[in-house]
Amino acid sequence: MTQPIKFLEPRAQVLADRERIIADLKTVLPDDCLVHEPRELVPFETDAFVSYRRLPLAVALPRTTEEAAAVMTYCHRFGIPVVPRGAGTSLSGGAIPQEDAVVIGLSKMSAILDLDFYNRTARVQAGVTNLSISDAAGAEGFFYAPDPSSQLACTIGGNIGMNSGGAHCLKYGVTTNNLLGVKMVLVDGTVLELGGKHLDAAGYDLLALVCGSEGQLGIVTEATVRLIAKPEGARPVLFGFETSEEAGSCVADIIGAGIIPVAIEFMDKPAIEICEAFAKAGYPLDVGALLIVEVEGSEAEMDAMLADIVAIARRHGVKTVKECQSAMEAAAIWKGRKSAFGATGRIADYICMDGTVPLSQLSHVLKKTSEITDRLGLRVANVFHAGDGNMHPLILFNANDPDDAARAEEAGNEILKLCVDAGGCLTGEHGVGIEKRDLMRHQYGEADLAQQMAVRAAFDEGWLMNPSKVFPLEGRG
Amino acid sequence: MTQPIKFLEPRAQVLADRERIIADLKTVLPDDCLVHEPRELVPFETDAFVSYRRLPLAVALPRTTEEAAAVMTYCHRFGIPVVPRGAGTSLSGGAIPQEDAVVIGLSKMSAILDLDFYNRTARVQAGVTNLSISDAAGAEGFFYAPDPSSQLACTIGGNIGMNSGGAHCLKYGVTTNNLLGVKMVLVDGTVLELGGKHLDAAGYDLLALVCGSEGQLGIVTEATVRLIAKPEGARPVLFGFETSEEAGSCVADIIGAGIIPVAIEFMDKPAIEICEAFAKAGYPLDVGALLIVEVEGSEAEMDAMLADIVAIARRHGVKTVKECQSAMEAAAIWKGRKSAFGATGRIADYICMDGTVPLSQLSHVLKKTSEITDRLGLRVANVFHAGDGNMHPLILFNANDPDDAARAEEAGNEILKLCVDAGGCLTGEHGVGIEKRDLMRHQYGEADLAQQMAVRAAFDEGWLMNPSKVFPLEGRG
Repeated sequence: MTQPIKFLEPRAQVLADRERIIADLKTVLPDDCLVHEPRELVPFETDAFVSYRRLPLAVALPRTTEEAAAVMTYCHRFGIPVVPRGAGTSLSGGAIPQEDAVVIGLSKMSAILDLDFYNRTARVQAGVTNLSISDAAGAEGFFYAPDPSSQLACTIGGNIGMNSGGAHCLKYGVTTNNLLGVKMVLVDGTVLELGGKHLDAAGYDLLALVCGSEGQLGIVTEATVRLIAKPEGARPVLFGFETSEEAGSCVADIIGAGIIPVAIEFMDKPAIEICEAFAKAGYPLDVGALLIVEVEGSEAEMDAMLADIVAIARRHGVKTVKECQSAMEAAAIWKGRKSAFGATGRIADYICMDGTVPLSQLSHVLKKTSEITDRLGLRVANVFHAGDGNMHPLILFNANDPDDAARAEEAGNEILKLCVDAGGCLTGEHGVGIEKRDLMRHQYGEADLAQQMAVRAAFDEGWLMNPSKVFPLEGRG
Repeated sequence: MTQPIKFLEPRAQVLADRERIIADLKTVLPDDCLVHEPRELVPFETDAFVSYRRLPLAVALPRTTEEAAAVMTYCHRFGIPVVPRGAGTSLSGGAIPQEDAVVIGLSKMSAILDLDFYNRTARVQAGVTNLSISDAAGAEGFFYAPDPSSQLACTIGGNIGMNSGGAHCLKYGVTTNNLLGVKMVLVDGTVLELGGKHLDAAGYDLLALVCGSEGQLGIVTEATVRLIAKPEGARPVLFGFETSEEAGSCVADIIGAGIIPVAIEFMDKPAIEICEAFAKAGYPLDVGALLIVEVEGSEAEMDAMLADIVAIARRHGVKTVKECQSAMEAAAIWKGRKSAFGATGRIADYICMDGTVPLSQLSHVLKKTSEITDRLGLRVANVFHAGDGNMHPLILFNANDPDDAARAEEAGNEILKLCVDAGGCLTGEHGVGIEKRDLMRHQYGEADLAQQMAVRAAFDEGWLMNPSKVFPLEGRG
């Protein structure tokens, strides 16, 4: 049986100094930028990985890079851990605090600083929501491509921390492929600017290193991101199959043929039923698995690409092909997909895995996933970014039944190990966080982890930044 | 006047132990994998940045990762510097050795290990040439996208070291966007595997960090790269303008309109004349500046995109629009562009700068570049990846005239500072190497350099790997 995930022991001295620390922070930040009353700290005790919760010591809500730097400088001087937080939508517990930590939240840093269509860039404060960038650029015909399902709420700072993806990342890449620069505060309060409006950068690619580093290398306070021109048109098409295996091998064949649609999303029967009941998306209910394939471009381009995809789908025994007839239908299809996690939450507790596998392994891993959940007496719904091989089995359980919860966690661990053993990895877009921290040993050998931790130490020798996350607690350098 | 670039003082103990080191290396490598006779070392004394040359202590040519690891383990134990070398085509002196260094060359590691069209990946030894990957994948309709002009000779290992680009990177991205995994040997002989056939990776993105780290974090011995499906068709079109400024602002408007052709290459009048004389490419000789714009896709897609581009070019006073009529004409156009550096070398010595600027600054920087070279009494030819803002002024000089050479170096430094001051950076694809090392202080403040060097130290505390490069010699951590 899986053991509960451990947090680091809180630093006794920090807990003992709580009152003094809060008094000190009040001299660094204005009153309305500091949260410290226990009942006001409750909204910050967990994130979308709700299995664990801790009240932090305090929450700082800086309005500027300078204020963030002042808080960091203070915490560094007194050895106080710091946990960065965007919107708290992390599915791997990346934003869950600990009792001795000051949370630095980005909610007061949500300005769009500069839209530069000439250079196709947007410069924003890190607390801006993902979707609001596209909203701001939309009138000029541009958008920001990575689109996590939580894009209405999640922040660009959190996206950078986790290297977030989304349904449309098959064509446009994930956060790291769309990030051009950041301003960030290092653990000791030093402010760095990495990258900018130009291609590449001299010296090491610290920007790429910071992207996906889960808030352990510093606090990103500003970001410059790539804007992309909206396509002439876009068309999602539904492909229904008898079995998940057929749908999985169809995906592999589409990509193997060199075709890159904007998105290929996968849903198995439980996922279809859950999403359709919630969103009335128009999904067929008489199929065993569904692909949402979106193509874009001119009408002729879309027709040509779709013809190729339909031909491949027929070879895999496709049962239903349903083209949407209107923008409203298209929106409904995506609403259904993007609300999958919320819709699942209505009927059961769930944990969402995020393993990523080579496409050739898709059918195999889907089959083995069912075997694992069947054996443990659990239900599973699969809804994921199939074109990227980025799987999201949602393991359903009853959080009020400790035995059920433990079996769900065990199933999750087994599924992630399965992904690694199939040549894949633990995470595609949700990050390691606290959820997958202890599985890092399954993915990596000692030398790999030692090198990653040496890089971490080059930024934060004292392990103050988001310290309970990413690396197993034992054997830290 | 610019001072000659300094190398680190050779380690006296290493020079004194030369005979013993060579004897020791003979026990680690077979005879034909070790070069140590001075006259046989001559081909390794410099690279395509020919201004500096040093004979190395010895050259190791391992055939396998294990042999490379054995050499690294030995050198690490005895504090011997190591300089990695692909094909020696570096334009920034990245592969220039030093007297106390063992060069580790990749020339015996040129096998293509695996072509996986299902997952669109190729796994290769790091000494394979860039072009041979596309050659191997071509029959199945795939290619490897980054295409440095030296692609016939340069190795994928060197490409990774410098994060190389090329004309077609406007659409497909540079090396880091097409690299999925590496096997590498750390300074102490430890072998790491980063990335693989799957999307993303758990923990920090060390793969992205290694890409572009100029051989200072380890020796890459194997790489897994992305294959891309060949387009249905491709068509380069020549756009001639009266002035460089018109051509530059046309480029900015194409990109600003959200149009991403495969390539937008720029040539000014001197570059056109040099390349046309050499390659008979069919370039118009009556224009002041030329853009080569390549579009790809179906005939209809190409027609549509070209119509948009032509309309923009007309607004910028385009004088000549010449579509190529055959595959042979297209090949000639690209041959002319890709042989620009070689063709220039026929008429003069030159140094090639690699500054990168935001597109909105293109015309401004072109104008200022002319002013700098005019003032210093030098000729300049501009031929570069305009769509990426990646400029390549070729500064012509006479290497036998020390004064001329010094002025050329001064002009180069001024031009790169100009790029940085325009919001750009020192390098787009050639790397810092030894050439731009001392300019890093112009790009970065102390904190930035300190953080980069701390990351370097996390891999190589003793500064053994390619030690004279990238960071200014003074103030190293």
